[in-house]
Amino acid sequence: MRRGPQVILPKDIGLIIAYSGVGKDSVCVDAGTGSGWLTVSLARISKHVYSYDTREDFLKIAEHNVRSLGLDNVTLKQGDVFKKIGEKEVDLITLDMPNSEKALKNAKKALKPGGMVFGYLPHIEQVKLFVKTLSKLKFEEPHIIEVIVRDILVREEGSRPSTKGLWHTAYLVFANKAS
Amino acid sequence: MRRGPQVILPKDIGLIIAYSGVGKDSVCVDAGTGSGWLTVSLARISKHVYSYDTREDFLKIAEHNVRSLGLDNVTLKQGDVFKKIGEKEVDLITLDMPNSEKALKNAKKALKPGGMVFGYLPHIEQVKLFVKTLSKLKFEEPHIIEVIVRDILVREEGSRPSTKGLWHTAYLVFANKAS
Amino acid sequence: MRRGPQVILPKDIGLIIAYSGVGKDSVCVDAGTGSGWLTVSLARISKHVYSYDTREDFLKIAEHNVRSLGLDNVTLKQGDVFKKIGEKEVDLITLDMPNSEKALKNAKKALKPGGMVFGYLPHIEQVKLFVKTLSKLKFEEPHIIEVIVRDILVREEGSRPSTKGLWHTAYLVFANKAS
Amino acid sequence: MRRGPQVILPKDIGLIIAYSGVGKDSVCVDAGTGSGWLTVSLARISKHVYSYDTREDFLKIAEHNVRSLGLDNVTLKQGDVFKKIGEKEVDLITLDMPNSEKALKNAKKALKPGGMVFGYLPHIEQVKLFVKTLSKLKFEEPHIIEVIVRDILVREEGSRPSTKGLWHTAYLVFANKAS
Repeated sequence: MRRGPQVILPKDIGLIIAYSGVGKDSVCVDAGTGSGWLTVSLARISKHVYSYDTREDFLKIAEHNVRSLGLDNVTLKQGDVFKKIGEKEVDLITLDMPNSEKALKNAKKALKPGGMVFGYLPHIEQVKLFVKTLSKLKFEEPHIIEVIVRDILVREEGSRPSTKGLWHTAYLVFANKAS
Repeated sequence: MRRGPQVILPKDIGLIIAYSGVGKDSVCVDAGTGSGWLTVSLARISKHVYSYDTREDFLKIAEHNVRSLGLDNVTLKQGDVFKKIGEKEVDLITLDMPNSEKALKNAKKALKPGGMVFGYLPHIEQVKLFVKTLSKLKFEEPHIIEVIVRDILVREEGSRPSTKGLWHTAYLVFANKAS
Repeated sequence: MRRGPQVILPKDIGLIIAYSGVGKDSVCVDAGTGSGWLTVSLARISKHVYSYDTREDFLKIAEHNVRSLGLDNVTLKQGDVFKKIGEKEVDLITLDMPNSEKALKNAKKALKPGGMVFGYLPHIEQVKLFVKTLSKLKFEEPHIIEVIVRDILVREEGSRPSTKGLWHTAYLVFANKAS
Repeated sequence: MRRGPQVILPKDIGLIIAYSGVGKDSVCVDAGTGSGWLTVSLARISKHVYSYDTREDFLKIAEHNVRSLGLDNVTLKQGDVFKKIGEKEVDLITLDMPNSEKALKNAKKALKPGGMVFGYLPHIEQVKLFVKTLSKLKFEEPHIIEVIVRDILVREEGSRPSTKGLWHTAYLVFANKAS
């Protein structure tokens, strides 16, 4: 994989997949594409992923990554989800970008009833704004988590958690459109 | 879903999916079936899941759950993976049962080169035994983690992590067969 | 100990003691007294503790607790630290009350140079307000932490962290007056 | 402070103080002395600390640290607690050394009824051995914890936990002699 912008880590991608219940019949929208890491992870397990970014350079990195994995169910789109999300009856929309709460109105229109929107938000202030907007748009009660993965060492001299590690990537917010 | 035996939680299932990279072309073996929760989660995103349990009552619960979700890519098998795993060129084998290290020899035979075995182990002593057996069987260096998901509350009176929560389900051990 | 209002737990008291470096020569101010748990814990290891609360009923519970432990170095004071802290050259001032940032101006006057103020704040919004006020009053850069204590079970059937536990009590904020 | 051997961190020292309830009337034994960090921390709040190490070079570092802080209630002793602990009616004995379970028999003799022994043990295997020995010597049920301190960042751009941090120092084991 070529990496450009910061990527969402497997620990967080795993929770997105598990909490959304996305599967082989699911249609996903991912914005912003970034390096395409999340796009590709969703494409491996879902029917189709539409991935939006405003930056052409990011889309080129993502295109390279999509191709190198031989995935044929990804549509990379240069566009601004704050202005428009063209898809309908979407199962999952993942938002990883600054001011992502501004995409929630369009996300709601694009989602099918019961569909899920996901926000990846490093700071608690962003979470608060996101949650407030979800509430205004009458999404169902959101679920907010942080995922902590701790490495365990099992060695000759003894077993213990790793001394140092990753403490925080971002808060994960999940909310369903009323069904 | 009907629940019988204890189930693996979404937080742990998410990490299994993310760390194994399992997708629509993947063939999985899950043992033991239990209530079929992990079987079903894997079936939603992979090509086929072969799910083993020695207990007929568990398999009946699982069969109910598989049917109610309309999944047609699950084969439930009453059998003992300590004695035999019938499949070949498997991408992922998940082990959630007592003494699961005893299944590793057969798991290795069933896995394709580079395929992954996963162990779900509540106690550190089990992890040590599992890791020792992996080493004897010349699996690649295992990755051992625990996954902690912390609920965050965002409310009128203020934002904070949830007061109480789940601290431990099991250790997750991942190891690849040499490719 | 008689308990009335919610108490600060040993895990948090331990960090207050360790981070403040309070010892046998230290003079402390504690507000609000509450049940007197923190007051008593500080009194056991320091020279003198002045403990403020506006509520007479809480002070009575605290008085009972102080007496039953035979401590003779505690002065319980009915008073409002937002209006006045009578002591001077104080080593440590601990604040556990709503709107505790309103006590910081008086805390600064009461502290000796290099003395430490501590805030016990359940919500992140309170932390932000507290930190902002510290900055205005030219306290040194604050240290903000949360303390997580995880029980470990070592038993015949195996060793593992406790399944459930306490995830959050409050954020702990420490800041020194410039020396 | 001069530092030689690895020191116990304030987070762990805080919990030792809070869980042991050590105060101005308490007599402590600390072994091994190491750099004297724990010895000094206990001396600041207790009546007297007897600190044992077999290594003269460590005791010299500790002596420097004790003197520079002007503490007059520390007795540094070159000696092996596996062979003998000379004190009686001790309130708290802290053990931070390899094979510290071998000191438990002497610790029991030195402790007053209800007194507490503490073990600082990096690996779970050490914890198991320590706990087993406590049980043989009829100490009360031990309390085993790990202490995790997480830094919180409150800044202009937003508030969040620190990205990386310390995950593990050691397991802390506390047990009381029957009273």
